[in-house]
Amino acid sequence: MEISYDLVIVGGGPAGYVGAIRAAQLGMKVGLVEEKKVGGTCLHEGCIPTKVLLEVAGFLNRAARAEEFGVRVEPPVRDPDGVLRHRDSIVNRLYHGVQGLLKKNGVEIFNGKGILTDPGSVSVRAADESVSGSGAILKSRYILLATGSRPKPWPGLPFGEGPVFDSTAALSLDPQGKKVGIVGGGVVGVEFADIFRSFGGDVTLLERENRLIPSEDPEIADLLRKEYERRGIEVLTGCGIVSAQRNSERVRIRVERAGVEETREFDAVLVSIGRVPNLEGLGLEAVPLSRTRAGFLKVDEVQWTGKAGIHAAGDLTGGPMLAHFASHQAIVAVEHIAGKTPLPVDPLRVPRVIYCHPEIASVGLTLREAAERGIEAKEGRFPLLGNGRSLIHGDRRGIVKVVADPKNGQILGFQGIGPGVSEMIALLAYGMGDHKGIFGLLDTVFPHPTVSEAIWEAGADVFDRAMHR
Amino acid sequence: MEISYDLVIVGGGPAGYVGAIRAAQLGMKVGLVEEKKVGGTCLHEGCIPTKVLLEVAGFLNRAARAEEFGVRVEPPVRDPDGVLRHRDSIVNRLYHGVQGLLKKNGVEIFNGKGILTDPGSVSVRAADESVSGSGAILKSRYILLATGSRPKPWPGLPFGEGPVFDSTAALSLDPQGKKVGIVGGGVVGVEFADIFRSFGGDVTLLERENRLIPSEDPEIADLLRKEYERRGIEVLTGCGIVSAQRNSERVRIRVERAGVEETREFDAVLVSIGRVPNLEGLGLEAVPLSRTRAGFLKVDEVQWTGKAGIHAAGDLTGGPMLAHFASHQAIVAVEHIAGKTPLPVDPLRVPRVIYCHPEIASVGLTLREAAERGIEAKEGRFPLLGNGRSLIHGDRRGIVKVVADPKNGQILGFQGIGPGVSEMIALLAYGMGDHKGIFGLLDTVFPHPTVSEAIWEAGADVFDRAMHR
Repeated sequence: MEISYDLVIVGGGPAGYVGAIRAAQLGMKVGLVEEKKVGGTCLHEGCIPTKVLLEVAGFLNRAARAEEFGVRVEPPVRDPDGVLRHRDSIVNRLYHGVQGLLKKNGVEIFNGKGILTDPGSVSVRAADESVSGSGAILKSRYILLATGSRPKPWPGLPFGEGPVFDSTAALSLDPQGKKVGIVGGGVVGVEFADIFRSFGGDVTLLERENRLIPSEDPEIADLLRKEYERRGIEVLTGCGIVSAQRNSERVRIRVERAGVEETREFDAVLVSIGRVPNLEGLGLEAVPLSRTRAGFLKVDEVQWTGKAGIHAAGDLTGGPMLAHFASHQAIVAVEHIAGKTPLPVDPLRVPRVIYCHPEIASVGLTLREAAERGIEAKEGRFPLLGNGRSLIHGDRRGIVKVVADPKNGQILGFQGIGPGVSEMIALLAYGMGDHKGIFGLLDTVFPHPTVSEAIWEAGADVFDRAMHR
Repeated sequence: MEISYDLVIVGGGPAGYVGAIRAAQLGMKVGLVEEKKVGGTCLHEGCIPTKVLLEVAGFLNRAARAEEFGVRVEPPVRDPDGVLRHRDSIVNRLYHGVQGLLKKNGVEIFNGKGILTDPGSVSVRAADESVSGSGAILKSRYILLATGSRPKPWPGLPFGEGPVFDSTAALSLDPQGKKVGIVGGGVVGVEFADIFRSFGGDVTLLERENRLIPSEDPEIADLLRKEYERRGIEVLTGCGIVSAQRNSERVRIRVERAGVEETREFDAVLVSIGRVPNLEGLGLEAVPLSRTRAGFLKVDEVQWTGKAGIHAAGDLTGGPMLAHFASHQAIVAVEHIAGKTPLPVDPLRVPRVIYCHPEIASVGLTLREAAERGIEAKEGRFPLLGNGRSLIHGDRRGIVKVVADPKNGQILGFQGIGPGVSEMIALLAYGMGDHKGIFGLLDTVFPHPTVSEAIWEAGADVFDRAMHR
C-alpha cells in the first residue's frame, strides 16, 4: 500500500505532533508515524508526569512549613497509588486532547516504526503486523524526522538491572524510607531530588562537575544547593564514579572526591546523565544524514538536514532538549517547507526552566557568557529578600538577574531562582526580540505585589536606578 | 524653623516614597511628610496584608482538595493569632526596608500632617507637638501631593459602629463560624470573600451591579462567580440595599433584588464600595486645586495639577487606585520636575490584578471596549482546560484572552483568570508598548509546561492558528 502526502512526519512528540498541526493549518495533507503514543516522551514520560509529582512535592513542602504562616497541620500522608492515578489521569486527559487535535486537523496517524527507505519514502512497520497501516509506504516530497531521544545509560549501571532507574522508571519509584542515589545533578537529577526528598526519601545527588546544574548560572546553582542542603538532600559535587556493583536490592557505588575514595550504598539509583537520539532503525543506512560529533542529526537554522526534502526537529537534533524548543523547531521547519520565511531558530532565545522548589528559569546569556562574546554587558540584580510577594510566598532566598547592553538597551539574558519564575521567563524571551529592549521593560508598569516586579528592579539596576535595593 | 528642599512630598505611600527615591536618584534634596507610617495604605492596610491572608487562604483551599492529587491530610487548623503575627512580621520587614531605603537615599522624613500654606510651602503638624520637626515649614519650588485615599463609608452603616468593618479593620476579623456580609463585590469585596470563606466564614457578597467585579470582563466575572458558588460563597448581584440596622452584635440588611425585598442578618459586615481621596486638612483652601466630578485632584499626563510647582500622584488623583500605578505616576511626576521627558502616564497600560483563587489579571481594552472606540479588533481565546500546567495546578476552569488589531498586530488588551496570571500580566503590559506587538509574541518561545503558554495560544487564536485548541 502506497499513500502520498504533502508531508510525512516520523515521531509524534512535541516536535512531530505540533509540526503536523501547523502543516495542516497551512493546507498540507500530513501522515504521522508514531511507534508508541502521540505526545511523546514529554507527555508520557517527561515534562508532564514529573511536573505532576513536583506539584505534589510542592504541597508537601508547604505543609511542612505551615506553622510559619500560622497554620497547624498534621503531616500529610501521600498515597503512592493515589498520586500515580492522579498523574495518569492528567497525562490521559492531555493525551486524548492531542489525539483529538490531530484528528480535527485531518492528520493521518500510523502506529508503528517509520523507516526511511529513500529520501521520499517512509515505510511503516508495526510491532504487530496485523495493525492496520503496517507495511504501508508513505510517499512525500517532504519528510520531517522527529523521533526524539531516550535516557543515556551509564555502562557501569545498566537500566533495569537491579534497582537502577532511568527517568521514566523513576516516575513510579516510591522513595519513602529509601536511600536514593542520583547520578547526575543536571535538570532531571535536581527535579527528581526534589520529588524524592519531598516523598520521604533519603537523597544523595552525585555530580561530576563542581556544581549542580552545570549548564546554569553558578550563583543560582549555589543557591539551589544551599536550599537542597537545608532540606536534607546530600549534594556531592566534583564527584567521580570509580565503580559500581548491584544486586537485586541494592547498589554500591565507589565514588572519588578530591582524591579521596569512599563507598556509598543505595536502595535505588536514578541515572540521569543525559539523553541520546533515537536514530536506530530509522533507515539512515539507506538515507545517510550528517551527524554532529555527539551523534545527533545536523540541521541548519530552518531545521534542514542538508538532504533534499528532509528536515528534522526536536531532541534528535541535539540540545537544548526541551519540548517547547522541539515544537518551535518543528513549526519553523514546516513553515519553511510551506515556502514561508519563518524567523530562523535561535536557541539563545529559548527559555529553560527547572521546576524544583523554588523554581529556576533562564534565557540567553549570563554576564560571563556575554563577556566571552566580547559584549560589554551589565548585570542588573535584585535579591528577592526585598520583594514583598516572595516574602508572602515564604521564599526569600531567590534572586533575579537581567543581563543587558546598557548602551543600546538590548536584553541579552536572564537568570532567576524564585517562586513562579517559570511563568515570568517568557517576558524576557519576548524582550530579547524587542528593539526597545530594557528601555521598554523599564517603561512597563509591573503589578504590585508580584514577584515579577523584581524583574523591573533588576532591569533598573542595570542603570543603577533600582527602586527597592 | 524653615528648611529648603528641591522637592517636598506630602504622603509616604507607594507614590510618595517611590517618588522620593527617584528624586534622590536624580540628585534632588527631598523632604517627605507622612502622618502615619511610610509605606502607606498598601503596605500597612492594603495590598501586602491582604495578600498574606490570601496566601494562607490558598494553602487551606489546596489542603481541602489534597485528596484529588493523592494526598490525605487532616483539615488544617488556622491559628488566628499566628496568622496575624505572620502578617505583621512580613509588613514590618518590608516597613523596615522602606525606612532603610529612604534613609540610604538621604530623604528627610517628617512625621506629621503636611499642610499647604502657599504654593511653595508645606507646614508640618504632628499629632503630638513635641515630635521633632513639628511646626517646621518646608520650602520648595516643587511639591508632590500623595496623601492617598481611605475606604468610602456607606451612610447607612458607618464604620466601627457595631460589627461594621472597613477593609482595614477586616484584616483582623476572624470570620470562623460567622455569617459575614460583604457590601460591594469589587476587587476588595471579592478578595475578602475568598479570605473569609477559606477561614471558615459563611459569606454573602452583595453587589448592586448585575455581576461581580463590574470593572472587569463579564465572562471572567461569570467564571469567578461560578467558582465562588462552588466553594459555597453566596453571590447576590443586582442587589440594592433598602435599609440597614445594627446593634453591637449583628447587622440586619434589607435588600431588594428584581423587585423583591428580603432581610438578611449578619454577624459582621464589610463595606467595600470604593475609596475617597484624603484631601481634608491639606490646605486646599489656601491653595485651591482643580477637582474631578468625583472629588479627586485633576492632573495632566505628567501629573501636574495646573498650579505652578504642584504635582499629585496616587489615589488622590482617582483611579485606577493601585499601588503600582501610584508609584508609576510619582516617577513620571518627579522625572518631569527634573526636566526629563518621561513617557506620559497611560492608565490603559496599567495591569490590574485580583488575588483571589484562581487569580484574575487584565490590562488594556476588552474586545467590546475596543469596538466602542471604533477599533476593528479581534479576541484570541484559550481555555485553560487545554493547558497542561493548569491541569497540574488543579485549576482547569480558567481562560485567557488577548485582544489585538490583526492588521497591525497591536496588542490592545488582555483578560485572564487562572493560576498565576498575576505574574504573567506584565508580559502583556510590555507587549502593548512594543511595535511588533502580537507578531513579536508569536515569535517568542514559551516554556512548556507553563500556564503562560496559554497566552501564546490566545495570541495565535487571533489569527485562527492556535496550536492546542
